[in-house]
Amino acid sequence: MAEPLKVGLAGLGTVGSAVIELLERGRDKLVARCGRPIEVVALSARSRSKKRRFDVRAFRWVADPVALAQDPAIDVFAELIGGAGDPAKQAVETALACGKPVVTANKALLARHGPRLAALAERHSVALNFEASVGGGIPIIKTLREGLNGDSFTRIYGILNGTCNYILSRMEHDRLAFEDCLREAQRLGYAEADPSFDVDGHDTAQKLSILASLAFGTKVDPDAVYVEGISSITLPDLDAASELGYRVKLLGVAVKTEAGIEQRVHPTMVPKESAIAQVMGVTNAVTIDAEGLSPITLVGPGAGGMATASAVVSDIADIARGVRAAPFGRPAARMTAIRKAPMQRHEGGYYIRLLARDRPGSAATIARRLAQQQISLESIVQRHESRAEHASEPGRSGEAVPVILITYATSEDAVHKALAAVRRDRVVSGRPQVIRIEKN
Amino acid sequence: MAEPLKVGLAGLGTVGSAVIELLERGRDKLVARCGRPIEVVALSARSRSKKRRFDVRAFRWVADPVALAQDPAIDVFAELIGGAGDPAKQAVETALACGKPVVTANKALLARHGPRLAALAERHSVALNFEASVGGGIPIIKTLREGLNGDSFTRIYGILNGTCNYILSRMEHDRLAFEDCLREAQRLGYAEADPSFDVDGHDTAQKLSILASLAFGTKVDPDAVYVEGISSITLPDLDAASELGYRVKLLGVAVKTEAGIEQRVHPTMVPKESAIAQVMGVTNAVTIDAEGLSPITLVGPGAGGMATASAVVSDIADIARGVRAAPFGRPAARMTAIRKAPMQRHEGGYYIRLLARDRPGSAATIARRLAQQQISLESIVQRHESRAEHASEPGRSGEAVPVILITYATSEDAVHKALAAVRRDRVVSGRPQVIRIEKN
Repeated sequence: MAEPLKVGLAGLGTVGSAVIELLERGRDKLVARCGRPIEVVALSARSRSKKRRFDVRAFRWVADPVALAQDPAIDVFAELIGGAGDPAKQAVETALACGKPVVTANKALLARHGPRLAALAERHSVALNFEASVGGGIPIIKTLREGLNGDSFTRIYGILNGTCNYILSRMEHDRLAFEDCLREAQRLGYAEADPSFDVDGHDTAQKLSILASLAFGTKVDPDAVYVEGISSITLPDLDAASELGYRVKLLGVAVKTEAGIEQRVHPTMVPKESAIAQVMGVTNAVTIDAEGLSPITLVGPGAGGMATASAVVSDIADIARGVRAAPFGRPAARMTAIRKAPMQRHEGGYYIRLLARDRPGSAATIARRLAQQQISLESIVQRHESRAEHASEPGRSGEAVPVILITYATSEDAVHKALAAVRRDRVVSGRPQVIRIEKN
Repeated sequence: MAEPLKVGLAGLGTVGSAVIELLERGRDKLVARCGRPIEVVALSARSRSKKRRFDVRAFRWVADPVALAQDPAIDVFAELIGGAGDPAKQAVETALACGKPVVTANKALLARHGPRLAALAERHSVALNFEASVGGGIPIIKTLREGLNGDSFTRIYGILNGTCNYILSRMEHDRLAFEDCLREAQRLGYAEADPSFDVDGHDTAQKLSILASLAFGTKVDPDAVYVEGISSITLPDLDAASELGYRVKLLGVAVKTEAGIEQRVHPTMVPKESAIAQVMGVTNAVTIDAEGLSPITLVGPGAGGMATASAVVSDIADIARGVRAAPFGRPAARMTAIRKAPMQRHEGGYYIRLLARDRPGSAATIARRLAQQQISLESIVQRHESRAEHASEPGRSGEAVPVILITYATSEDAVHKALAAVRRDRVVSGRPQVIRIEKN
């Protein structure tokens, strides 16, 4: 049998430990698939003495991950430390510079330093694989990088954060407020103690920037992503969406427009019958649109130790089999600077929920302000609802009546201007709620 | 720039023509992705003079596809002729034996001769790529072959035939009979003049046998697939399914069981809220279950010239980039003979619709026969329905009452024995309808 592939693994959290377990359990299958065994030969982590599901004493211990990255006894370096800074960054750079292929689950590192690391990997003719960085166990990186080479992508969008999708699913299903669902997610370990990175959309933005790069051949640029989180979404929004045939999801969307690449993360209304609307709980999903083709959707576990570890092991197996693709699907020199489409130029349908003061002329004023911006309405619903439903909403006074507007395609800029005018007119109370609509 | 990859293409039907169009349109993108251009340099097809969407005179013409396969001027042979026999088979064998990589969309050839062709490709160290053979534009072959290497697959199932899914979707949506939908599918070009290969399940069986081989490392064996088509499905079945929370789909299912690999194609009731139940029309979908992981589902266009051509071009691009994986994900010598799990050992839930003669004791007799086979019932619905709904059903007499049973998991064998006994008892009229239930 061929020589085993010797792995040095840094970072022993949930994912690192699951990788060790999967490699052990899948040993024979991996030999059959790769033609050689895969062996973890050395480990590195902050604490050696921490209680773990496996015996660390079975492996050589290297306290410093950067030392492990250049250890002559390893063939491949698996970075599961996380974070865009050191030691993860230094360790990955060191391994690549030593001519060792790298497998990483580190979305922050890729989002921040992807193009530079890809160039480094290319210079040393080694693989840099990061399937686990986006979409957990869904093979979305490989699909974009190697699987759909003939296609001209026009749009890629998806549910990339399980925490947010869990919260929105629970809100809808159990009629609970955002805060209650967030607490529940924290209790179940789906959300961090500081949940802002997830619920404010930043996690999704990093992942989206990686997918956009693979789809459009642009340099990864998380700063070019417009980001809005889900904390402003209320039950009345979900109810109104449902009545109108939509469901609310936190989507990351990257679209090719005439103005450039538009990258945005925000709560989004998607048609209830679309594939992406069916995705509930911590599951992730990505839809790929290409010219002249029906959309392709991939659905699967977006997080969790085993799902992420499964992606890491796949990446290691590719290295064992000698497969090496350009990290971002094309030579680093051919990755183009992103031409950022500004958000105010975004065109699409909008859901707008206003609390109109219940007095003559309010509706007419709102309608006039929208018309002044050339905004056409697909539907308008105004209704006196039971007060209890809105009791908790800030700004709701006894006399305010919810008005829900669905616009035809219009520009972000027009919507902002119309709503600013409506607020100046003092015909609404509180802040209008605006949710973009994404059609499939 | 590096030398172009020179393609010889045999077969100029819808797919072959679309490949030429895609390669032309995507030229620059492919150079960026592969680092070299891809050029079709020679063609072969039955008729040179047939009217086509491109000018055949722009390409060298080789009348005999086998001669094209060994032409020294080509680097890769694309076989889009179809059929398990010659000339497709001989042309593919010739190309591989000459050390030329092969790309094919030919499911019949792969199902019938896959392991032998894989061994031949391996012996000559060339790629044999067949992404287009299953699931059209969905990258399911690559995902199973290269994308989920760490996983221990337990089950793979999917909607693999667009014609059948179109017919079942239309029946449900427009309340039409099978025959009417079939005629409509033929009119739209979704079904052949002789539709039996599709509607009787044989197309699905060939595709399933290829997926099962990739998932379980077994030799492709389409003869080991149990096959049942959709022509017996009636509107009352779809209605009853819907009422019970299910939808009927033609699934191909391959499962690892203690008795071996069970491969089966049959109309299947799937829970309405499952990802696969949402797939309507000619769209395909495949769900992959692996140990300790949530399921992964891929949804996309299952057929059509562009979708299939997109898969062919991806395969060619892999060759241009120098990627070569073992055709079935492992060395040919490691593909094991399939241990076929006999269908009578299948365990699962069943939907059974009987027309019980409306006389005292019928229900008691049916219940007794099921109990004798240790079959437990999850639900039983008996109802006098309007006669019109069932007027067209053979065997329906004026006094017959439909009885719908849903069983808990039981064996195929037990169901057959119980129903044979019920028929001998002459308490039902006509043939009982049996649809297997697949849980997600």
